[in-house]
Amino acid sequence: MKWVLGIDGGGTNCRAGLAAATGEILGRGQSGAANVMTDLDGACASIVEAAHAAFEAAGQVPAFDQAGAVLGLAGANVADVGRRLATQLPFGESRVESDALIALEGALGGHDGAIAIIGTGSVFMARHGETIRSIGGWGFQLGDLGGGARLGRQLLEETLLAHDGIRPQTALTAAVLARFETDPRRLVTFAASARPRDFGALVPIVFEFADQGDPLAKSLLDEVASHVEAALTALGLRQTDRLCLLGGLGERIAARLGAPLSAMLQPPIADALGGAVAMAARRFGAATGR
Amino acid sequence: MKWVLGIDGGGTNCRAGLAAATGEILGRGQSGAANVMTDLDGACASIVEAAHAAFEAAGQVPAFDQAGAVLGLAGANVADVGRRLATQLPFGESRVESDALIALEGALGGHDGAIAIIGTGSVFMARHGETIRSIGGWGFQLGDLGGGARLGRQLLEETLLAHDGIRPQTALTAAVLARFETDPRRLVTFAASARPRDFGALVPIVFEFADQGDPLAKSLLDEVASHVEAALTALGLRQTDRLCLLGGLGERIAARLGAPLSAMLQPPIADALGGAVAMAARRFGAATGR
Repeated sequence: MKWVLGIDGGGTNCRAGLAAATGEILGRGQSGAANVMTDLDGACASIVEAAHAAFEAAGQVPAFDQAGAVLGLAGANVADVGRRLATQLPFGESRVESDALIALEGALGGHDGAIAIIGTGSVFMARHGETIRSIGGWGFQLGDLGGGARLGRQLLEETLLAHDGIRPQTALTAAVLARFETDPRRLVTFAASARPRDFGALVPIVFEFADQGDPLAKSLLDEVASHVEAALTALGLRQTDRLCLLGGLGERIAARLGAPLSAMLQPPIADALGGAVAMAARRFGAATGR
Repeated sequence: MKWVLGIDGGGTNCRAGLAAATGEILGRGQSGAANVMTDLDGACASIVEAAHAAFEAAGQVPAFDQAGAVLGLAGANVADVGRRLATQLPFGESRVESDALIALEGALGGHDGAIAIIGTGSVFMARHGETIRSIGGWGFQLGDLGGGARLGRQLLEETLLAHDGIRPQTALTAAVLARFETDPRRLVTFAASARPRDFGALVPIVFEFADQGDPLAKSLLDEVASHVEAALTALGLRQTDRLCLLGGLGERIAARLGAPLSAMLQPPIADALGGAVAMAARRFGAATGR
């Protein structure tokens, strides 16, 4: 392949990176949502648009049939979505991976180690040599205990328990109830139609009150950190591993990790798009290494 | 009023009890669902049908305009549903109450004390003299921590954590996963469309494995019992109070309560329908007392 493409697509937007066969990025492009779970055709269109923009940014005439692409897409690991998408794409060759895998590749480069992606949800992935293992990522209803949506829901639950006198009220529960005009029924109504991201939007208030010493805020964040530690421990990390905490909650939760995990923390080497481009260069280009 | 009617209506069925002014029950009737939250007109029709059947069972010509009714209805305490329903009913006088209040009246009779209704959800209510206080009952998403739906959801969450190696596997987690063809994705798919009652349907397996000594089953039930204890404690019970645990989980959770609550346990004096009839006889008939 003359060109290699890395694609990082999710529910909010889709990014593409175009590189020469050596893996050197020449241009980047962006487009709208690429949600393969809910809109496969729309996702396909967004991917093509982002790739087109990347060719343009590099000053090149788009030559999709001469490009090998690695795509990291949220939801691609479910059922046969990835395989169906790959047959629709116009690239010379396409390989569809999970969004977590390209994030792992970007964050760790060639090193062994693990990532925790803790945003609205939570997923954990480790690589030791050729062995890759992923846990978590089961979604809001039954999993994602390290993510912001579950944290937000737990905050509302604790607020109701405090309102009922079952748990102590704190400055945080009072502030949350005040957001709902101090009427717990409004809080319940909000939750009835709230999406995970709506619960996740409550996370900043937890951080704010934790900084002020609120005991509930601190204990909620400790619970999240404790789950992240348990998940990373289950992945069987080694002292020499690199560990990157990614996603909107990553930095704040990293600060709450105990030793020995905190000693393994490293900044990510590249982002998920960089990981996708690197994987594409190895697979379809002239780059070597794993 | 010549007649008094007690009505106990919920999402599954609607029951009516007809009594003379003295409160002596002469006939009972039953009909379909009376869900005032989702179908006010249908609930109204079910109520009328059950009342009609109660008159027939007593061998009396229905005389709704000479009947005073107390209706205990799930959801009646939300917004102005109860007031709107009361204007539609054909009875001489109608008073709409929550389902919990008629259950309290039935269970305790004239005594002070408290009830816990722990079925799919959970709600707690205490009476001391004229003072009635209710907590809980906030629904599956943010509350109902003493109910079967939350217990079932927690069971599935623990099963995924065990599958991921974050918590120990037990005979119970293995049995649950086997129900989903040992594919955790099937479990997640089930949960995505499950209603509270579907989660609640998992409760018997928890009791079964608790009896066999499964540590997870026991700890899940201990958590439920611990919430029930905390809620009853928040209601400020006194040593002389009667305590009744009602609902599908009532008996099993009662067995896990510690002293002093377990010493207060009493069987309910009457069911919720009996409570509604007693309230109607006091309010509209010749019966006295509270």
